[in-house]
Amino acid sequence: MQERLAGVRCLVLGGGGFIGTHLCRALHREGAEVRGFGRRRSYPDALRAISWSSGEFTDPIAVARAVEGHDVVFHLVGGSTPESSNRDPYGDLIGGAGATIRLLDICRAAGIRQIIYVSSGGTVYGVPQVVPIPESAPTDPISAYGVSKLMIEKYLHADHHLHGTEYTVLRVANPFGPYQSPERRQGIIPTVMERIIRGRAVEIWGDGGVVRDYVYIDDVVRAVIAAIDHRGPNRIFNVGGGRGRTVSEIVEDVAEVLERPEFARTHKPARHTDVPLNVLDISRIGHDLGWMPETDWRDGLQKTAAWLRSWIAGRAE
Amino acid sequence: MQERLAGVRCLVLGGGGFIGTHLCRALHREGAEVRGFGRRRSYPDALRAISWSSGEFTDPIAVARAVEGHDVVFHLVGGSTPESSNRDPYGDLIGGAGATIRLLDICRAAGIRQIIYVSSGGTVYGVPQVVPIPESAPTDPISAYGVSKLMIEKYLHADHHLHGTEYTVLRVANPFGPYQSPERRQGIIPTVMERIIRGRAVEIWGDGGVVRDYVYIDDVVRAVIAAIDHRGPNRIFNVGGGRGRTVSEIVEDVAEVLERPEFARTHKPARHTDVPLNVLDISRIGHDLGWMPETDWRDGLQKTAAWLRSWIAGRAE
Repeated sequence: MQERLAGVRCLVLGGGGFIGTHLCRALHREGAEVRGFGRRRSYPDALRAISWSSGEFTDPIAVARAVEGHDVVFHLVGGSTPESSNRDPYGDLIGGAGATIRLLDICRAAGIRQIIYVSSGGTVYGVPQVVPIPESAPTDPISAYGVSKLMIEKYLHADHHLHGTEYTVLRVANPFGPYQSPERRQGIIPTVMERIIRGRAVEIWGDGGVVRDYVYIDDVVRAVIAAIDHRGPNRIFNVGGGRGRTVSEIVEDVAEVLERPEFARTHKPARHTDVPLNVLDISRIGHDLGWMPETDWRDGLQKTAAWLRSWIAGRAE
Repeated sequence: MQERLAGVRCLVLGGGGFIGTHLCRALHREGAEVRGFGRRRSYPDALRAISWSSGEFTDPIAVARAVEGHDVVFHLVGGSTPESSNRDPYGDLIGGAGATIRLLDICRAAGIRQIIYVSSGGTVYGVPQVVPIPESAPTDPISAYGVSKLMIEKYLHADHHLHGTEYTVLRVANPFGPYQSPERRQGIIPTVMERIIRGRAVEIWGDGGVVRDYVYIDDVVRAVIAAIDHRGPNRIFNVGGGRGRTVSEIVEDVAEVLERPEFARTHKPARHTDVPLNVLDISRIGHDLGWMPETDWRDGLQKTAAWLRSWIAGRAE
């Protein structure tokens, strides 16, 4: 396993974010030559050993310069959230699907051998008819964020048909773990954790009965790496934790891990962009790529809590 | 039936094109107040009785001005073709899905009661797994044109979920009839007809075995009108001719209708953006809206030929 990627030249677009930071480090550990590209590195210290190009994904010249000389391109760009995308769906379209169209041309010209796209298992399906949701389920997003993510998958498919571009799509559920900032509204786990650690009230949207699929970041990164050089009839894979948890359960478990069983809550109205239930069927990736989540839920929460405590301490200095 | 739309204020975006010209006239005949909007009227004489606003669909100010004061908006905008979209997929995205995002905001602000979107049954499905293709089939377009059309459907769905926007999507197969210009590469029927009438060789792409679904324009317009004020669980409907025909059959039938059984052909390589087989399952629209195609195939060809002959004569003057 060690060094299995020796000499593979990897470019991670969006490499400075939560998943990107972990992916760059993991690729590097496995012997790949890694470059990150993005607007900024959220945790520059974590990426000290990784080459870095600063640039906007919407700037085709910067992207072309970064793509040159690589074998595999990981597309993790996604600056927005479902909520913010609905405030500016046009900007979301240009920065997501629009910039991806140009990326495809650039990758073709540069002879990239595979594009791996990290899509959103939590939004592309919309309100599911069957749970757990298989990859073949209808895709009817209820946010502009989900539509743009889905459209990127569709452009990859068309490009494969027209030009033979090799690609793999990973529809990742809600990832959590170290480097997921509580400030950027990326997920409820760091947000809830930070509030409990600081002794603030936890905000619960709706009745807390919304069901989500959480998957630990190390497992996500293993799935992405397993997809390298994958060829086969299936190109789209769900990546999830294998079971659903209600928001109430998650909050209770976080409090338990933090050893703060008594904590304050406030209730807020349900958000219309939240699908009520989202759990991914992960049997396809198990079958085709031999992947399954391995991190125990409470272990994952413990590691996240340890990182978050040091992050909070670092900011207090 | 006559005047059943009395007082309904209809805006037809893309009203100057092939389908738009027919739709404006049919709405007017049924008593609606009709305004067309678009870059230009291909056949201004045909729209003499119809109010008209000239403008670009990508200009939100022009669109907002046109939308104001209407009840129902028909979205027929689509300047490109599958072939041209693959030359400029970015422009296709901005002009299609991008401009539609803005249209949705505009319609919401103006209190539009329904948006009817004419999508593309020939491209949104991609290479079908089941034929005839039901609306529930996978949608994996193989052209940027198809991706942009599909995403417009998805934005309508998300907007309905978020804001209650009422909409209906018609996935129309290959329409044919008068006002379909042989100059604009909109379909093989006028192209083949014109060549045979002028005594030129007919170009056959591939082996002529590609199967297409053709539907006469009057039937398409009836389907669009039947969708007005439709409410129900299904919002997406196929509109097709109910059977497939090979390109070779179509060419033979055109020659027969034109009474030119002897005509020259040249063969060209198959085009990669052509799906090999496309026939739509039209049972859903039959069930929900009571629509089915009524025009006899040869009658449709005869009417098309009569128009095309006068068009050619008009240009020769």
